[in-house]
Amino acid sequence: MAEKLTDFSRLCIHTITTKPWSLAECLDNYRKAGVPAVTVWRQWLEPQGVQESARMLKDSGLRVTSLCRGGFFPAASGEERRNALDDNRRAIDEAHAIGAPLIVLVCGAVPGMPLHEARKQIADGIAAVLPDARAAGVKLSIEALHPMFSDARSAVNTLTDANDMARKLGDDHVGVTVDVYHVWWDSRLEAEIRRAGKTILSFHVCDWRTPTRDLLNDRGLMGEGCIDIRGIRSWVERAGFTGDIEVEIFSDAWWAIDQHVFLEKIKAAYLEHC
Amino acid sequence: MAEKLTDFSRLCIHTITTKPWSLAECLDNYRKAGVPAVTVWRQWLEPQGVQESARMLKDSGLRVTSLCRGGFFPAASGEERRNALDDNRRAIDEAHAIGAPLIVLVCGAVPGMPLHEARKQIADGIAAVLPDARAAGVKLSIEALHPMFSDARSAVNTLTDANDMARKLGDDHVGVTVDVYHVWWDSRLEAEIRRAGKTILSFHVCDWRTPTRDLLNDRGLMGEGCIDIRGIRSWVERAGFTGDIEVEIFSDAWWAIDQHVFLEKIKAAYLEHC
Repeated sequence: MAEKLTDFSRLCIHTITTKPWSLAECLDNYRKAGVPAVTVWRQWLEPQGVQESARMLKDSGLRVTSLCRGGFFPAASGEERRNALDDNRRAIDEAHAIGAPLIVLVCGAVPGMPLHEARKQIADGIAAVLPDARAAGVKLSIEALHPMFSDARSAVNTLTDANDMARKLGDDHVGVTVDVYHVWWDSRLEAEIRRAGKTILSFHVCDWRTPTRDLLNDRGLMGEGCIDIRGIRSWVERAGFTGDIEVEIFSDAWWAIDQHVFLEKIKAAYLEHC
Repeated sequence: MAEKLTDFSRLCIHTITTKPWSLAECLDNYRKAGVPAVTVWRQWLEPQGVQESARMLKDSGLRVTSLCRGGFFPAASGEERRNALDDNRRAIDEAHAIGAPLIVLVCGAVPGMPLHEARKQIADGIAAVLPDARAAGVKLSIEALHPMFSDARSAVNTLTDANDMARKLGDDHVGVTVDVYHVWWDSRLEAEIRRAGKTILSFHVCDWRTPTRDLLNDRGLMGEGCIDIRGIRSWVERAGFTGDIEVEIFSDAWWAIDQHVFLEKIKAAYLEHC
């Protein structure tokens, strides 16, 4: 089991975790709270544009852990698939501009499309944009999403699937993201984390509430649920991962409270449960 | 791909699918509608007791496909675990009394209990009641539940896990249930169905709605969602399964309409999508 964390040097927060805040508010409030790193969701770049966002991020002094999110490759028509590739190339440009070393891929799925076809389109899509990612020095990280999202968000639903795909692509600019929310239940998780080894590019934490009241926006603060977050952290660290520990919480309940209070709760939960 | 079904000879309906109806209403209405088989949930035995229920089932002429449900083995205390074993032994007695050849096991989970511990307690629990099952001529069928139920309903979340457990128990009175709702997303499903072979004791159908509005009670009628039910049926039949096709739908929406109308919709969907 990993030791408790004793400082915030590896703490990263996703802008979507404090959804009511703009990029400027996120950066200012994270910095004042001693949070050294941020993962930026693309929606937070839009209001002021990429170049201004890049300047704000640089001025903030915060480390940019990653850009969320690329992916959503599968589509019914060739035109939609080409649009998806274009959008991923734009994401690569954005990541490069803001100094994000990687993009997290929520790979995509289309209700009714056979999953093996969706998985093929995902692998083809990643392969198609890989030259752009390499040229920009941006890595692409395949995130396995919980099987409750197989219908419309991702046909990659276990770390096994993500590892298989990353290995097949066989490129040092492709790796995997381990998000405890999506993979905690898997009986093969420890073995697959070991197998992923140095290809683990990022590590996301939150918790699984009982009961979970909503499939999308009822994630728990660490400690609020049943995930053995520290146990999983010990596995990813044994596999060689030393990067940021990223707090990514979608929660209508937490978004409804004062985000300064929430930020302090995140910091306390980070030390207590991660 | 399997041929379309052309008659109702293999159609079984779970009493919980038409939740507003009592056992007497289920039996009468299923029989009148030409549904030849029923899976009885234990709550439907309670109002009139097991012996009277057994008589009603016999008089109805319906085939009893299975009893739902045993399981829920893991618990924090030894006393609770012993209570769970007693309850499973009562379920075995009930199955024997009503002529159900098998009991479906929803294996159980306890929020916060490590999943490997829950899995051990499940295997131990099944082993403990197996002599009773054998003596009663009742089979025990391990149902993999969707990973969104790993926290509190079942620590057995893939057909791989269910197959592993059934093989380890190694007894001809233990097998597995394939419920399309729980396993449709799994990239290894076809291979694991092949591996399960003749140990597949039952086959449940419904559909996965997009969006799914509730984790528990928003299952779709076949055709309402994205599951390739006929494709999965072709795999279980290739593996040697020739038993009933059981319609098990938990749905606040469907329970709210006239259940006679719902029953006709089930029959039409069965021919069209199973």
